[in-house]
Amino acid sequence: MFYIIGLGLCDEKDITVRGLEAIKGCSRVYLEAYTSILMVQKERLEAFYGKDLILADRDMVETESDEILRDADKKDVALLVVGDPFGATTHTDIILRARSLKIPVRVVHNASIMNAIGACGLQLYNFGQTVSLVFFSETWKPDSFYDRIKENADLGMHTLVLLDIKVKEQSEENLARGRKIYEPPRYMSITQAVSQLIEIEELREGGILTPDKTLAIAMSRVGGSEGQERIVSGTLSELLSQPPEVFGEPLHSLVIVGRRLHHLEVEYAETFAVNRESWRSTARDVYGCALD
Amino acid sequence: MFYIIGLGLCDEKDITVRGLEAIKGCSRVYLEAYTSILMVQKERLEAFYGKDLILADRDMVETESDEILRDADKKDVALLVVGDPFGATTHTDIILRARSLKIPVRVVHNASIMNAIGACGLQLYNFGQTVSLVFFSETWKPDSFYDRIKENADLGMHTLVLLDIKVKEQSEENLARGRKIYEPPRYMSITQAVSQLIEIEELREGGILTPDKTLAIAMSRVGGSEGQERIVSGTLSELLSQPPEVFGEPLHSLVIVGRRLHHLEVEYAETFAVNRESWRSTARDVYGCALD
Repeated sequence: MFYIIGLGLCDEKDITVRGLEAIKGCSRVYLEAYTSILMVQKERLEAFYGKDLILADRDMVETESDEILRDADKKDVALLVVGDPFGATTHTDIILRARSLKIPVRVVHNASIMNAIGACGLQLYNFGQTVSLVFFSETWKPDSFYDRIKENADLGMHTLVLLDIKVKEQSEENLARGRKIYEPPRYMSITQAVSQLIEIEELREGGILTPDKTLAIAMSRVGGSEGQERIVSGTLSELLSQPPEVFGEPLHSLVIVGRRLHHLEVEYAETFAVNRESWRSTARDVYGCALD
Repeated sequence: MFYIIGLGLCDEKDITVRGLEAIKGCSRVYLEAYTSILMVQKERLEAFYGKDLILADRDMVETESDEILRDADKKDVALLVVGDPFGATTHTDIILRARSLKIPVRVVHNASIMNAIGACGLQLYNFGQTVSLVFFSETWKPDSFYDRIKENADLGMHTLVLLDIKVKEQSEENLARGRKIYEPPRYMSITQAVSQLIEIEELREGGILTPDKTLAIAMSRVGGSEGQERIVSGTLSELLSQPPEVFGEPLHSLVIVGRRLHHLEVEYAETFAVNRESWRSTARDVYGCALD
């Protein structure tokens, strides 16, 4: 059996009992290290699971899937992934490969940012499509996310914005010289994300990401223990004005609030507001939300 | 501390290790029995958790939240919910109440249909808003879901359709006589759901739920063990023509496939097709998907 096991959001205890039992019976256990970041070290997972873990980076999962799947028709092999196996990055490729090799596959689901984002208090069924925001460079500022957010905004829906992560990047020099030396990982901050959104709004002028009128909710380490998880709500300009430490440690995600905003959603997220009064007044005056 | 703990999708082993540890330390543990169904009996959960569970129905969670929250500032109390605490039905009300009572709250996330639906092979980030489909009666056929699906379809997005559940229904007679006698639970079948969709399409003629041209994927008991989880893909009319047992036991969910369909998604879901050839030809000819 080939298991793909979601580890959930934060640390070693977010695995399900089903997932943990499966790991304990496996001959080989791979830990996928690229789709997201773990908030915990590999060694801590190994100690908790009682198993050595083989790190599988992007290259390996994509190009060496046969090695991962080796003997999985006779023995149990697991691939551990952060979040859910069908989260932001899916694992359909390796499952298709397993199927073609006639290897039985079992998926063990878990929470991912795609559902845990509900912790911000906005109703999940009012979210439209999810978008990804990549690091801008001087010469490359891909802005197709703007069209997606606008599609959602035009329908009044909320948008989950996933912020870029750069892991195993090579400097131009190292790349040119073929040296496999990697830069430290980079995680997009809320400040950078909001700046990029506003930069493209100024260019495109769709009126959907207006600094003083668009509400957003910043989240980090969703599902983490006290002091880890952070939720901060406010207008884009309020979020932009906060010092970075307000938003906590990466990973960060950002929700753009749509017009189909219910007063209970406003009330729930008010607890996290940079400024409760402007949160409420923007919801009432700009979003047309029925509040006292 | 007041814990709201997601139980995940299927049975007692889908709880996370974090959730299980929290339960073991609690003075009182409530099991919410209404938002969805459990695929497992209360007694089995109790045996596994080593705790008695207090059943909390809709009435209780909505109107007796203070009883649930009693002493949670001094002792640990948990409310267990199927899926994730912020799934299709959220628990923001009771969290707001806990906050107003100055009771600390900790949410333990888990998989829910809102992210596990990715198991059908369609990319989660291409889903639009989620809709609910309620049981039609002779006199009541609410069709606002149609507008929501159309909004998604116009943008090419997939739609997750959650099918109605009737739990603790009273017959008209029992209701009139004030007798608290409840009908057995009812779960909408895939056949009924597809019939209702087509019925409204015939009325509204938006061309988004065409029996021979619209692709859909039926799912039941997502994340369940072999023989439990079922995934069936096809045109609406193909799904309609299947005998009920093909779709397995409830709960069922249905995905309406949007035009932003990638060939890898087609390939992945082809395994589950009623008819592989028509699945591919519809994807190619109607959806314009680049396939061989």
